[in-house]
Amino acid sequence: MSTVGQILYTHPEDPEGVGAKITACVEACGECAQVCTVCADACLGEETVADLVACVRTDLDCADMCAVTGRAVSRRTGEEDDVLRLLLEACAEACRKCAEECERHAGEHEHCRLCAEACRRCEQACRELLAAL
Amino acid sequence: MSTVGQILYTHPEDPEGVGAKITACVEACGECAQVCTVCADACLGEETVADLVACVRTDLDCADMCAVTGRAVSRRTGEEDDVLRLLLEACAEACRKCAEECERHAGEHEHCRLCAEACRRCEQACRELLAAL
Amino acid sequence: MSTVGQILYTHPEDPEGVGAKITACVEACGECAQVCTVCADACLGEETVADLVACVRTDLDCADMCAVTGRAVSRRTGEEDDVLRLLLEACAEACRKCAEECERHAGEHEHCRLCAEACRRCEQACRELLAAL
Amino acid sequence: MSTVGQILYTHPEDPEGVGAKITACVEACGECAQVCTVCADACLGEETVADLVACVRTDLDCADMCAVTGRAVSRRTGEEDDVLRLLLEACAEACRKCAEECERHAGEHEHCRLCAEACRRCEQACRELLAAL
Repeated sequence: MSTVGQILYTHPEDPEGVGAKITACVEACGECAQVCTVCADACLGEETVADLVACVRTDLDCADMCAVTGRAVSRRTGEEDDVLRLLLEACAEACRKCAEECERHAGEHEHCRLCAEACRRCEQACRELLAAL
Repeated sequence: MSTVGQILYTHPEDPEGVGAKITACVEACGECAQVCTVCADACLGEETVADLVACVRTDLDCADMCAVTGRAVSRRTGEEDDVLRLLLEACAEACRKCAEECERHAGEHEHCRLCAEACRRCEQACRELLAAL
Repeated sequence: MSTVGQILYTHPEDPEGVGAKITACVEACGECAQVCTVCADACLGEETVADLVACVRTDLDCADMCAVTGRAVSRRTGEEDDVLRLLLEACAEACRKCAEECERHAGEHEHCRLCAEACRRCEQACRELLAAL
Repeated sequence: MSTVGQILYTHPEDPEGVGAKITACVEACGECAQVCTVCADACLGEETVADLVACVRTDLDCADMCAVTGRAVSRRTGEEDDVLRLLLEACAEACRKCAEECERHAGEHEHCRLCAEACRRCEQACRELLAAL
């Protein structure tokens, strides 16, 4: 088990049976935030950067969204309310949109191919947590 | 006009008539993120911190949410899509929830009173931008 | 007085006579983070984006650095230690570097001119707080 | 190899022989940011929260610092300059300080024990990248 999974397991407040899905979501958000940050910078380093502006922007939005979603999911502020649900929906949409944009460049840029895959994994993790809440 | 309002006005891509509401939302999110960060830390500094745990958590969630919403709203990634709409709804809900929690302590703690007010302003700014999109 | 200044003033732990400089630093960091985020996106929207890649990157670095510095300065974690000092130095350097990069494009792009000014103000606020710690 | 390691490897600008250390630092920062976020919230959930205020604050500082350091290290803004060096020093210090605070509670709270370990790993990764720059 990862350190993140382990520490979530030690939390004094029981996450009501959604612990495994919380862990999966926090980890997927962390990976996706990092990968989108690298993809944005890699796009900026390409000679064809002018064709990749939309990709940089969706990468930056998705990185920010995943970072904040991972943080909010990590907290026991109260799963019952609407904030986490809306945030997870927004994050899943940001991941879907970024995946679609990156997939358009996946043939030319390996970083876009890897980023699209990370976004799809994170979208799925967010939707699975949403379904479990 | 604030510097943020000025620089948003110089953006090469026209924000389609919602410029003033974008500026108001970015500024309200910036203020609310700062104020919630201070309120969380001020709650941690109170002798009665054990009674303020929910307040610390909603402050931290609200600070994160406002920070990322302000960033996303600042970008011309594309207003037409669902991501910004969902994020603004999530942020407005986080602000509403944090305002309600802080209002419970507003009589005892001036930082909670000020924080509740900033949250209400930010909730309104998010909802007004949502209505204009 | 701004809301941020007011709420910092209500904090139960006295900031040891550096309250005004803390407020100035938190506000300058908040403004600079917002302005750099807009400048990065505005650069991405320019036809000459390929010539502005360094500016986008320094904007993004500076925005991140100012955001986290504003948060850390807002907390009473303990001013005596080295973390805040090193962070303020790093933030001041990020602001200086971003100002220098933006100043190179200030004649062509009004957003770079405004951003350079916000960076200079934030650099100064960080250095003044450093001197007062 | 992790996805983060893979995508950093595909970046069009060669990271000048420090690629493996960059990957290690980005991954350690990501893990530490997540673990500190959980530890802060777990401390808030303990009945003895009043004794853990310093731990919550160092956790929050460390989480923020690691998040922004991971982002800045991911970008090819220019390794030659002082910003990254100062930021890595600040992050290593934040990790060291958080580790020391968490170690004081490691016997009672498993989340503090795990957090201290993640902080030590991240401190080391930052210092190794610093030595390689």
